[in-house]
Amino acid sequence: MKRNELANERLTGQLEFLAEIDRLKTVLRKTYLIDRSRLENSAEHSWHVAIWAILMLEHANDPKPDLDRVVRLLLLHDLVEIDAGDTFAYDTAGYKDKEAREQAAADRLFGLLPKDQRDEWMGLWREFEDGVTAEAIYAAALDRLQPVFHNYRTGGASWKQNRIARSQVLVRLEPVREASDALWALAQDLIRRSVEQGILLDDQAEESEG
Amino acid sequence: MKRNELANERLTGQLEFLAEIDRLKTVLRKTYLIDRSRLENSAEHSWHVAIWAILMLEHANDPKPDLDRVVRLLLLHDLVEIDAGDTFAYDTAGYKDKEAREQAAADRLFGLLPKDQRDEWMGLWREFEDGVTAEAIYAAALDRLQPVFHNYRTGGASWKQNRIARSQVLVRLEPVREASDALWALAQDLIRRSVEQGILLDDQAEESEG
Repeated sequence: MKRNELANERLTGQLEFLAEIDRLKTVLRKTYLIDRSRLENSAEHSWHVAIWAILMLEHANDPKPDLDRVVRLLLLHDLVEIDAGDTFAYDTAGYKDKEAREQAAADRLFGLLPKDQRDEWMGLWREFEDGVTAEAIYAAALDRLQPVFHNYRTGGASWKQNRIARSQVLVRLEPVREASDALWALAQDLIRRSVEQGILLDDQAEESEG
Repeated sequence: MKRNELANERLTGQLEFLAEIDRLKTVLRKTYLIDRSRLENSAEHSWHVAIWAILMLEHANDPKPDLDRVVRLLLLHDLVEIDAGDTFAYDTAGYKDKEAREQAAADRLFGLLPKDQRDEWMGLWREFEDGVTAEAIYAAALDRLQPVFHNYRTGGASWKQNRIARSQVLVRLEPVREASDALWALAQDLIRRSVEQGILLDDQAEESEG
């Protein structure tokens, strides 16, 4: 195969993938924009958390994660939602088959790419999902902190609608606690204020009795 | 000032910036999503072109640009539109005061950040705008190629609506010609097909007589 033919064949797969992922712009999350005008979609969310990661690196615990890999993890972490949909963070039923649905989505979507890129992107997506490396933990921390911040800034728009309580949010924020002392302090502060303002249900009393 | 107080002061500015840039999700471009359901917004566009840049690097001419800086340029390149709006690529009147409007927007927006980050982000934005470095040229190439691809895939939805002709698109694509032989060949192919399919006005005859 000539060099140009090979380049063209690769380009065909890459363009197909780039067209396909346009659909992430139509996958809606449960979080509102800060102006409350509408729900956020997963593509613009991915953009936003990538910028969060860049700006907040100084607050990450040592040793600092590799920021460039973090940014890639965040840009691609939600792509599987194109097929699998956005599973709401607090939807326990939806989480049961989430893994199988998302693996099938990853196989199909990344399978559109040339083999070397497919393997690389599948690896990055698995790294994010596994949540073991410093990069995956820091990426997950921003992915989880951003909707808490949006809830705080919108008077709990999504929390109220879905009757979310403090203990549920705290469980979700575990990667923040692991990734950054400063961001964990911020998260606890946002939760405390949210409970005080009545925009997040307080189930702490229940919890400590249980 | 204690270390914690300093961290908190920096965090306050960073969070203000991160809340403010949420508004980029409400800035609409003239380009349609590939499913034609609506116009694309500038935040999700920034996400999309960052992924274009990552996947297409192999097609960039040598010496290859620094991909990580390219990704940052693309993530932040449209932020000034929050104040300045999206100036349509083919709006010559709008382009007259575009620079002044965007500089004022950059001053205000990046001014929300701690000084070192403000300087860094202002520098990256200026690098993109100046379009001189290999990174800025490659970033601009993707920023310009993506809407051409969307037009091609939507039957010229935005071109038709705005009566855009071949020569206008070719001028916009200059960074593609500079950045990548392979992507320039792709762009020319998309334009030729678009003219053949009647989704892009053909002003070539006029041009050559002029």
